[in-house]
Amino acid sequence: MHASSSSSNCSRDSASLFVSSTRAATARRNSAAAFRPTSNIYLRRQKRTSRGYDRNASTTTTIRCHQKTSYETVNLGKTQHGIAFTDLNNICNEMIAKNGIKNGQVVVHSRHTTTAVTINEYEERLVDDARQFLLKLVPPLYPYLHNDLHVRFPPDDDRWKGTVEEWRAQEPLNAHSHLIAMLLGQSVTVPICDGKMTLGTWQSILFVELDGERERTVGIQVSGE
Amino acid sequence: MHASSSSSNCSRDSASLFVSSTRAATARRNSAAAFRPTSNIYLRRQKRTSRGYDRNASTTTTIRCHQKTSYETVNLGKTQHGIAFTDLNNICNEMIAKNGIKNGQVVVHSRHTTTAVTINEYEERLVDDARQFLLKLVPPLYPYLHNDLHVRFPPDDDRWKGTVEEWRAQEPLNAHSHLIAMLLGQSVTVPICDGKMTLGTWQSILFVELDGERERTVGIQVSGE
Amino acid sequence: MHASSSSSNCSRDSASLFVSSTRAATARRNSAAAFRPTSNIYLRRQKRTSRGYDRNASTTTTIRCHQKTSYETVNLGKTQHGIAFTDLNNICNEMIAKNGIKNGQVVVHSRHTTTAVTINEYEERLVDDARQFLLKLVPPLYPYLHNDLHVRFPPDDDRWKGTVEEWRAQEPLNAHSHLIAMLLGQSVTVPICDGKMTLGTWQSILFVELDGERERTVGIQVSGE
Repeated sequence: MHASSSSSNCSRDSASLFVSSTRAATARRNSAAAFRPTSNIYLRRQKRTSRGYDRNASTTTTIRCHQKTSYETVNLGKTQHGIAFTDLNNICNEMIAKNGIKNGQVVVHSRHTTTAVTINEYEERLVDDARQFLLKLVPPLYPYLHNDLHVRFPPDDDRWKGTVEEWRAQEPLNAHSHLIAMLLGQSVTVPICDGKMTLGTWQSILFVELDGERERTVGIQVSGE
Repeated sequence: MHASSSSSNCSRDSASLFVSSTRAATARRNSAAAFRPTSNIYLRRQKRTSRGYDRNASTTTTIRCHQKTSYETVNLGKTQHGIAFTDLNNICNEMIAKNGIKNGQVVVHSRHTTTAVTINEYEERLVDDARQFLLKLVPPLYPYLHNDLHVRFPPDDDRWKGTVEEWRAQEPLNAHSHLIAMLLGQSVTVPICDGKMTLGTWQSILFVELDGERERTVGIQVSGE
Repeated sequence: MHASSSSSNCSRDSASLFVSSTRAATARRNSAAAFRPTSNIYLRRQKRTSRGYDRNASTTTTIRCHQKTSYETVNLGKTQHGIAFTDLNNICNEMIAKNGIKNGQVVVHSRHTTTAVTINEYEERLVDDARQFLLKLVPPLYPYLHNDLHVRFPPDDDRWKGTVEEWRAQEPLNAHSHLIAMLLGQSVTVPICDGKMTLGTWQSILFVELDGERERTVGIQVSGE
């Protein structure tokens, strides 16, 4: 796995707002830091100097709003054959730290119709149990209608650019992978508290490949303050 | 499907806050637009005119907070018999556009105990595979305890107004639908980035009827800035 | 069930921010209450008195931001044997009321690898059906690899402090519980609208014990304004 972020990420940091208008000579600043622990807005204010008349008075207002949302499409590289699990805890922790989220949520979601996202223990023998269980529950060798490529056509919108033959040639026989994906789930939301995911000791956020090996991405969003 | 929103929707748009106090003659405005891309608060400020003394000074402060939450209970009308899938992408996209959410989340959740929400490819033959697979996995004809209506009673709170006989007469034999609903899941959260859901090319948010045909609604919430 | 919150909870209430600087004699306040229904920021402002020159002028600015996030690890006490369901609606409703969230979300997530969170009807015979169905679908008596404790070792990080023998002695044979947890799901997100969860009439947020009896906690986060 080479977990480099892909180019399709975006981030909006409300903390970058600075509004200031200064006409003062002297600045007496309230300590912005004092507000930091309890709020997501703080306001620094240069008050007026007392110089006879008020003609040199000033008001400098700085407002910062710490509500933040950052999304990344993380490239997981080429997955293993068949069903395979990838532990995403480190990637999520890095995104939380990088964005400085103290209280909020991390949303991890599958971006493919034959992958899933779930939370469980990342233990190699349990992963093998899951692989066997899921393939027994939804066997790949079964007369699924979705796998009858000779009677299927690509969608008639702009999602497929090539010919019908090209589409059939690249389309995998993976109805079982779709069905397993439905059972395992497509998105998990984990609260962030004091800068950490509130997962239990043995929990990992798991990306589940169900039709590998393939190049895959996963969507991760952190938001909060 | 006639996807008109039902009446039980609500919306709070923080952007509608305008706080202003004006005593000035002349207004010199900072460009509010300049702050828009990077923040969810902007502040327009009419500064004082320099007119000898400061008695005509003014401060007009306009604060807008763009964090927004909007929820709708969308009426899906009467669903098809048995198990049926409805693609919700268009409804979700409309809600995102209507509320002008650029970065945030869409939460779609099932509001019935025998419906589900999942994400997968909306391909008609795959939908048939899913229908067959789910009914084979959780067969409707099985001696479920929940279907023994003759020994069951309506809840003794105010959720049921009629008699026991009326309750039994309208109660469907749908234990299998409840169990499938548990397997498929009740809520999905999809990040919104640059005004678009971050779904993959072939992904649709799917409402799943498991005990049709019935009048159904689905809950959709968009939030963000 | 004794649902006392555990000590590992945290809360950030942006509403607690008050920034004020007063040099005025008289205060003319805009009604803060007037802004409350439509916004999450309001601004009270003591304007200047008109007393000849402006030397006694004042500016009192109070900004409140109502975006709030509160997380609690709720202690559910010792669960029942095997598979057992706990209705969390009351606990969630209390957290929403206590934090005064009008519009936002509640996220409930499993903090154990052999528990799950789902939404369905909390009906005792349906709960028995679910118990039987899940144990039939994923039978406990099966040669799971995860249950071969004699060839497994504790993780080589700081999550386990004791010896290998101590770890093996306390490790339950619960591969089936892990697999059921993956199928049922680990987190649900329910929108809050007008101070209430937008659940349907018969829906309950259900904590699912899959390897009881054990002391368990569940993570609940409410956020919004």
